[in-house]
Amino acid sequence: VTGDEVLGGRVGEGNAGFLARDLAGYGIRVERTLIVGDDVAAVRDGVGALLSLGVDLVCTTGGLGPTYDDLTMAAVAEAVGRAMAVDTAALAMVDERSRGVPRRFGVDEESLEAMRRKQATLPEGATVLPPAGTAPGCVLDHDSTLLVVLPGPPWELQSMWSAAVAGEGPLRDLLGRAPGATTRTFRLWQVIEAELVEALSPLSPDDLDEIGTYTREGELEVVVPTRLAERVGTLLTASFADAVFATDGDQVDAIVAAALRRRGERLSVAESCTGGGLGARITAMPGSSDWFVGGVIAYANAVKISLLGVDPAVIEAHGAVSRQCVMAMADGVRRATGAEWGIAVTGVAGPGGGTADKPVGLVWIGVAGDRGTEGFELRARGDRASIRRRAQTSALHHLRVALMAPA
Amino acid sequence: VTGDEVLGGRVGEGNAGFLARDLAGYGIRVERTLIVGDDVAAVRDGVGALLSLGVDLVCTTGGLGPTYDDLTMAAVAEAVGRAMAVDTAALAMVDERSRGVPRRFGVDEESLEAMRRKQATLPEGATVLPPAGTAPGCVLDHDSTLLVVLPGPPWELQSMWSAAVAGEGPLRDLLGRAPGATTRTFRLWQVIEAELVEALSPLSPDDLDEIGTYTREGELEVVVPTRLAERVGTLLTASFADAVFATDGDQVDAIVAAALRRRGERLSVAESCTGGGLGARITAMPGSSDWFVGGVIAYANAVKISLLGVDPAVIEAHGAVSRQCVMAMADGVRRATGAEWGIAVTGVAGPGGGTADKPVGLVWIGVAGDRGTEGFELRARGDRASIRRRAQTSALHHLRVALMAPA
Repeated sequence: VTGDEVLGGRVGEGNAGFLARDLAGYGIRVERTLIVGDDVAAVRDGVGALLSLGVDLVCTTGGLGPTYDDLTMAAVAEAVGRAMAVDTAALAMVDERSRGVPRRFGVDEESLEAMRRKQATLPEGATVLPPAGTAPGCVLDHDSTLLVVLPGPPWELQSMWSAAVAGEGPLRDLLGRAPGATTRTFRLWQVIEAELVEALSPLSPDDLDEIGTYTREGELEVVVPTRLAERVGTLLTASFADAVFATDGDQVDAIVAAALRRRGERLSVAESCTGGGLGARITAMPGSSDWFVGGVIAYANAVKISLLGVDPAVIEAHGAVSRQCVMAMADGVRRATGAEWGIAVTGVAGPGGGTADKPVGLVWIGVAGDRGTEGFELRARGDRASIRRRAQTSALHHLRVALMAPA
Repeated sequence: VTGDEVLGGRVGEGNAGFLARDLAGYGIRVERTLIVGDDVAAVRDGVGALLSLGVDLVCTTGGLGPTYDDLTMAAVAEAVGRAMAVDTAALAMVDERSRGVPRRFGVDEESLEAMRRKQATLPEGATVLPPAGTAPGCVLDHDSTLLVVLPGPPWELQSMWSAAVAGEGPLRDLLGRAPGATTRTFRLWQVIEAELVEALSPLSPDDLDEIGTYTREGELEVVVPTRLAERVGTLLTASFADAVFATDGDQVDAIVAAALRRRGERLSVAESCTGGGLGARITAMPGSSDWFVGGVIAYANAVKISLLGVDPAVIEAHGAVSRQCVMAMADGVRRATGAEWGIAVTGVAGPGGGTADKPVGLVWIGVAGDRGTEGFELRARGDRASIRRRAQTSALHHLRVALMAPA
């Protein structure tokens, strides 16, 4: 991964993560991810270090733009000891893509031509990958490693990668030779890591060494080699029963979506401390408009009262962060939108606003359906962002449990 | 950065980014970020490779938990050739922190004791850093590099880092010797990179080499060494005037927040395609409750009509993705909440739902204030997530422009 902006933390790393997830489906494990700045020597040395691992595949992302700090192609050429040359196929693609790019200020034709030629200059012997934006990528063989040079903007990278994977060529051949998925992912809710260690104690130390665990937002993720999946599944179910909510890597979001779709019911949300984040997370799923109608961001108490119909006396008596208020919010959004389900979140996300009685991290979750309304307390640790994410996840889990309840 | 879950893209990398941003304030530049899996040899070799760069500081994050795949301390000890020993100060901290951790299933006392001792075992000669969760970190000197071992959960890392930076010790000494911030960040709205190249053409190639640029969500970020900041500021203002919205790294979010606070006015939002993401982004800022009241997630047209009072005839005649509809949404949320300002977003985020007339990426932004209501068209490229983020950023910029307009 190249880019001062990623290395400096001004933009999050997402490209290596995307590639790792996609490659995992082919059973290809990422050995190392290296982030370097926009500097020819750093990129060259970084690519060199990765090539020296003797891996099958090295991907680079970023640094393919038209400007002076986009220097990945030159650095890759140095790393593999090849000259650079304008690739006529690449140049035609860049010319085609550059047409119609908006120009507000006068950039002279000579500069534009230089930029286009720069973007079409590849290491000799490389095969061009057609641009998704304006920058082509390339694929080249070096000793026994395939080197794939990809752009930095996430959607350009994803488009180019998908096209390269789908098309004929050395990348497709490499993926075709890969073993296929080698792990299975179990997810548990409200189980802590120490309990997991205990539950898996019948396994040998060597087997345990191959199991990865990760705790996040009240969920525990357990990544297991395929050969152990059945045994681990049995042990987990024996110890934790319904707390095992996914045995094949599903996320709670997808589980809730599938259940609502199956039941033909609609969902609405009322959010205070999450400020819209729960709705944003739900609507991140394409097709959510089939079952999600929207709701109310009830950040101010006045909005809880006016748009959700929460009785001011409830807030007066119990406060906005209370079981009574969250149940009224869930009821209110269900009624206001006409959806079959309403979920509500209200809490103290911090850093300010905590009291001895209602400390930072206290969150109430409400779930309203045609069988009644319930309120659940959550005590989350961490900073404002963690508390808000945890509250969203918890709300989805409480809805999941309600959706799964026998009729 | 250690962790199979980060390397595999199952959780985003944020810790190295956090440290990089914090260190930038001291004028400390990150040379390299390396992500490796939960494997002693990989962590040991990775730490060794970073130490061999001869840098002042190497930080590790992750792998300090109680379980079998948390092995960073052992790997660090191998990398610096030191033995491991239980640190009595660390053990006391772990014991203190472990009290009151919830236990739902029976984990026997012997296992718990083994876990506590594991977490308190440090490389010899290291100084313990008190845990924010249950896992202590440590600091140790190796040749001329300071090595800081930090936990993986972001809030634990951030708490431990802040405490280590604030307290007496070798880390504080190192930061005290650092030069201070060495760059300044300019941000421009709706300026493309090619125009920037032209605007900065009076600079020498060597100067240009030191300038980093990054395009994101319609904004262009320009990171400039302090010695060039004044000259670049003059060139940018000459070419782009008001398009330069920040000359010191401010984000549009903070600019809008400050303006609303200064004016003593309140904001509300009405969101269709962003599904709550704009509200979530606004409320990510602590203290936003002083000026943000909430709003409506109007994902379904029925909610646009019932909660925002959009005239069904407007949707019938122009569609939900139209100037007319977005203006009615902005008006409606302003009226429904009583806030001085209402902003609204409606668009086609894709991947489905696009037509020749209204393709994926078409978004309308509405801004309603006491001087009237306006609608703005945006044509965003990219995938669903990019389009939604771009729409949020664009909405904040249109509000910013409205807030800055002379009375």
